[in-house]
Amino acid sequence: MLKLGIIGATGYVGAEVVRLLSLRKDIEITTVVSNSFVGQPFSSVYPSLRGLFDKPCDALDIEQIAQKADFFITALPHGVSTGVIPALLAKGKRVIDHSADFRFRDVKVYEKWYKASHPAPELNSEAVYGLPELYRDKIKAAKLVADPGCYPTCCILGIAPALSKKLISPQGIIIDAVSGISGAGRKSELPYSFCENDDNFKAYGVANHRHTPEIEQELTAIAGEEVIISFTPHLAPMKRGMLATSYLTLTEKGLTTQEANELYKEYYKDETFVRVLPVGQLPETKFVTGSNYIDISVTVDPRTNRLVVVSALDNLGKGSASQAVQSLNIMAGFNETEGLLAPALYL
Amino acid sequence: MLKLGIIGATGYVGAEVVRLLSLRKDIEITTVVSNSFVGQPFSSVYPSLRGLFDKPCDALDIEQIAQKADFFITALPHGVSTGVIPALLAKGKRVIDHSADFRFRDVKVYEKWYKASHPAPELNSEAVYGLPELYRDKIKAAKLVADPGCYPTCCILGIAPALSKKLISPQGIIIDAVSGISGAGRKSELPYSFCENDDNFKAYGVANHRHTPEIEQELTAIAGEEVIISFTPHLAPMKRGMLATSYLTLTEKGLTTQEANELYKEYYKDETFVRVLPVGQLPETKFVTGSNYIDISVTVDPRTNRLVVVSALDNLGKGSASQAVQSLNIMAGFNETEGLLAPALYL
Amino acid sequence: MLKLGIIGATGYVGAEVVRLLSLRKDIEITTVVSNSFVGQPFSSVYPSLRGLFDKPCDALDIEQIAQKADFFITALPHGVSTGVIPALLAKGKRVIDHSADFRFRDVKVYEKWYKASHPAPELNSEAVYGLPELYRDKIKAAKLVADPGCYPTCCILGIAPALSKKLISPQGIIIDAVSGISGAGRKSELPYSFCENDDNFKAYGVANHRHTPEIEQELTAIAGEEVIISFTPHLAPMKRGMLATSYLTLTEKGLTTQEANELYKEYYKDETFVRVLPVGQLPETKFVTGSNYIDISVTVDPRTNRLVVVSALDNLGKGSASQAVQSLNIMAGFNETEGLLAPALYL
Amino acid sequence: MLKLGIIGATGYVGAEVVRLLSLRKDIEITTVVSNSFVGQPFSSVYPSLRGLFDKPCDALDIEQIAQKADFFITALPHGVSTGVIPALLAKGKRVIDHSADFRFRDVKVYEKWYKASHPAPELNSEAVYGLPELYRDKIKAAKLVADPGCYPTCCILGIAPALSKKLISPQGIIIDAVSGISGAGRKSELPYSFCENDDNFKAYGVANHRHTPEIEQELTAIAGEEVIISFTPHLAPMKRGMLATSYLTLTEKGLTTQEANELYKEYYKDETFVRVLPVGQLPETKFVTGSNYIDISVTVDPRTNRLVVVSALDNLGKGSASQAVQSLNIMAGFNETEGLLAPALYL
Repeated sequence: MLKLGIIGATGYVGAEVVRLLSLRKDIEITTVVSNSFVGQPFSSVYPSLRGLFDKPCDALDIEQIAQKADFFITALPHGVSTGVIPALLAKGKRVIDHSADFRFRDVKVYEKWYKASHPAPELNSEAVYGLPELYRDKIKAAKLVADPGCYPTCCILGIAPALSKKLISPQGIIIDAVSGISGAGRKSELPYSFCENDDNFKAYGVANHRHTPEIEQELTAIAGEEVIISFTPHLAPMKRGMLATSYLTLTEKGLTTQEANELYKEYYKDETFVRVLPVGQLPETKFVTGSNYIDISVTVDPRTNRLVVVSALDNLGKGSASQAVQSLNIMAGFNETEGLLAPALYL
Repeated sequence: MLKLGIIGATGYVGAEVVRLLSLRKDIEITTVVSNSFVGQPFSSVYPSLRGLFDKPCDALDIEQIAQKADFFITALPHGVSTGVIPALLAKGKRVIDHSADFRFRDVKVYEKWYKASHPAPELNSEAVYGLPELYRDKIKAAKLVADPGCYPTCCILGIAPALSKKLISPQGIIIDAVSGISGAGRKSELPYSFCENDDNFKAYGVANHRHTPEIEQELTAIAGEEVIISFTPHLAPMKRGMLATSYLTLTEKGLTTQEANELYKEYYKDETFVRVLPVGQLPETKFVTGSNYIDISVTVDPRTNRLVVVSALDNLGKGSASQAVQSLNIMAGFNETEGLLAPALYL
Repeated sequence: MLKLGIIGATGYVGAEVVRLLSLRKDIEITTVVSNSFVGQPFSSVYPSLRGLFDKPCDALDIEQIAQKADFFITALPHGVSTGVIPALLAKGKRVIDHSADFRFRDVKVYEKWYKASHPAPELNSEAVYGLPELYRDKIKAAKLVADPGCYPTCCILGIAPALSKKLISPQGIIIDAVSGISGAGRKSELPYSFCENDDNFKAYGVANHRHTPEIEQELTAIAGEEVIISFTPHLAPMKRGMLATSYLTLTEKGLTTQEANELYKEYYKDETFVRVLPVGQLPETKFVTGSNYIDISVTVDPRTNRLVVVSALDNLGKGSASQAVQSLNIMAGFNETEGLLAPALYL
Repeated sequence: MLKLGIIGATGYVGAEVVRLLSLRKDIEITTVVSNSFVGQPFSSVYPSLRGLFDKPCDALDIEQIAQKADFFITALPHGVSTGVIPALLAKGKRVIDHSADFRFRDVKVYEKWYKASHPAPELNSEAVYGLPELYRDKIKAAKLVADPGCYPTCCILGIAPALSKKLISPQGIIIDAVSGISGAGRKSELPYSFCENDDNFKAYGVANHRHTPEIEQELTAIAGEEVIISFTPHLAPMKRGMLATSYLTLTEKGLTTQEANELYKEYYKDETFVRVLPVGQLPETKFVTGSNYIDISVTVDPRTNRLVVVSALDNLGKGSASQAVQSLNIMAGFNETEGLLAPALYL
């Protein structure tokens, strides 16, 4: 029985991890750490879990919680993880961190975009970027896995096949993406209130969203040359769900949608959670919300010689919590798909 | 391995049954019957199931499908079930039907409210009302189970403890209830369009909704005397979810909320899927959507000497599909909770 | 040109008043007072008003703002109004206040339900309850008008005809009501966040909501005897809109829906903003959101001998802001309907 | 008093025109023509208009309706307008048509994208593209105005200043846009049902949406050379609202956001309905829904040397109905802004 602690458990990502694991027989959540709800039953914070996970929340006391678990999933704000994770690693724990703190191999990029100095840069070279489809083998043995951002997961998996197969130019990539409101976390701030978001659509972070360099890091690694992208995130009035539309310049003329589709299917043929849709079908977030799947379609636009990739996932699923569980399964030597196969609710 | 056929599989109730069973190892869905999608893969109708349930839809040919399965769940419109189920029963199949056709022990009540003559009234005396919390033993051996309506499940379970313990008068019961739009089924009609429902709230079926006599039948059975209720359903702009607020006249003065709460907890102490909330907490549909749970709160209003019961479930969960699976588990001798314990998504 | 000041102008009620008056030629909003946005253009807080109302927000300095306007609409939290309004009245200003502070003729009722002592009880006997359909004449000359609560407006106008004509018993009235989230005001608190409310439905304030005594006060005045009601509010996932379903016991048997409908039409025949729907049509909030109309339907349920009244309005319209403007029109001697006739957006 | 007929009046665009004009003193809607609701009061189809516009719907009898009005707004499906409008013009009527039939100066482009032959190509050379900000003078005298599509209005007004001032290259333009569901019209089809759209986001018409050539026609006219664009529309779960994010390649390096903003402000300095937002503020659909305004922001991304333009309007407002009214005002010699200044509801 794997013993797992969750730190930052009462945010939406943490709570989704609890939901995903609440019925697992091979994993026991031994501690849920929360800043705001110490001593309160987890199910009083998330009554959906009443009778399923009633354990009270613990305070963040590394000594105490280190005794309770061997693995930790941390879902803390950026800049906070760095204060917690070195201590856990020092005690031999294995950690999956959902902050951005350990996602960047070049700490300077992190420091520039996150406007903060990084207190533990040495850990970044050790940390593995937790995208199983790209780094499965490294995750297996990792002590520290940096769970990718939601936008990066959605965009990188959508572009990787075309880029790695040199179908497209690494230059001029434009990604226009949309997230449900839960991407901001469990926030009690006016911009995330119901009335300000219902029936409303907006762009944000134009030309400066922090997921931009994370996407660029991975696309650069795939392309073997520097990739600079235009990336614009938007907020749609829905709780969960993310969809990215990527505009990619084809390197040669004449490629058909059918051919692009087959190349994508071939690329992902062993990946359970990446579903390349048949030609003519486009992703919708309701096909994936609540699940660990990502759906991808490819369309060649011969008029502009571009490949338009649409990819969709659940920002709380493959975009964060269930992807963290996927990495946990890999690290622990479980079947990678254990507990993660359930389909989206659709409605 | 239990072999199950689903008739009317591409409606929302049918599709939810498929979702719930798609990962079960002890049940195989051997045929999905659909009027509109014969020959098409089920996952092309519900792409959320791509890779999980791709079987093509079958036509409604009793001879053919009877060879494929021993159990059937039928999710057909009222009046259509009566044309299909007798034939299945005649072939020794066991059936859980989600229409209203077999819910009424007195066929005349059905004929009056549904404005139709009933072609197989003899089956109604044999059919068991599929509310496990009330009729578990009868369901075990039943050949034909009538899966209750969503409103009736929500209201009956909310009122049963108070009524059976004579806490309240059987007279003057008023129930005000709200459903998500999926309660109407998968409809391509203007009244169910996005634009007509988003950000909109309305009442419907005032003083004449067909679930009224179904609720009355069961409350009458509990009370041991005729119960006539006022029942008003409403539509809220949400996909799933149902909440009923019941106004009940206390038989004596002085009962406290605390006492009522304890009586309810005692009444349901062995029921996994009925959660009586602690005093001070009220149900919300997000605590139960996607699950088989029903949450109930009780509040005594000493000013009016009424007991106000609020109960919430998922109309596609405990209100239809997952309740049908619960009955299926019972009929098949499986653990009653098998595959049904998963909590709501919350978001 | 009437000079108007709005205090608490950046809340949703205040902003709706600004929206309603932004194009009026006969009223000039000379000051908008806000706690949080002093010095900022109103249109930076509500960019929908860019180019239409860009005036910067003023601080709450009674001396200063009193020089700017003759009429004031105050939309302040309960308990705060009492600290501001006496000073305005002392300077000869006429005030429409949207808090509950001056709605109760019996200050003890206020103090009990609002758990606060009232610092200016003498003003309550002078204040007029701002429901024009009931108190038009008194409003005309009033110095202080207490703009009614949203639920009370919706319920009182729905029940008044039946009660005043003795069609129904004053005993046993039950009201089940639903509000859009904006009823809570412009809140940056978790319970009002998008993710916690979208696709969710819940009851709140069961047996203790503060609008209960306000409804009772007015129904008692109409009935001429004490009226005690059961009132349960709910929150639906929509920005605006309110709908109440009232269960009323008919005093005699045999009344038809048609007759009740005609009585209601007769009662409201001179009221522009109260629309009694034809038999067979039920209110929906989208018929009234954004407007000053209230739609009402009546249905006789002969099985239970009850009259079921469904009434719908916009909680930010007839339930608060536009009703305040209606009172302002009356007080100022304008045409009562001036600037208020615009229909709902429907979508 | 201008006499106006509306053909296709019970669709969402037609109903929005009725809403906008229902209180005008200078325009009388003398006939509303509907296929499905002949003889029924308009307010029974849109109860929001009860008491405001109760006129019954007329059948489409050109002889009859031609006697009733001098101006017509037609909101008919593409391909249907061509069968109605020539007859109206022949009778000397002036027409604003909301279909695509007369938007294309090159009929072959229409025939290719709409897969239909055009029965009255000679009218296209006479028709004026009804974008007042570009064609005000021509609209004044036009007999036939082709009301632009919603996406084209949103995109063209967003790109026009940069393109006409040669700030950007006419090559490589990419537009990613989002619409509320009402953009599809008043549809009783499953893809537009509440349950299939609520909390869901999707792309559609990738690389083949019919608004593409309409945008290209106008951008080509501005650029003075052929413009080919990538355009991807999406559907967001909201009733109204449209937002486009345009990616434009700057012709020179070094332009700042501030400079681009000032150029845009200068370009639109005389346009009441185009609001260039201050640097740092981005459009949201709630700032414009229900109104005739379009909000635009510009951001220079120095990393990619692109100008990112975000523009937002109401697809039923500036994107169709209120823009038609704007053209009507111009054609009739009224003040262009008459009846159109009202701000968005915000909530």
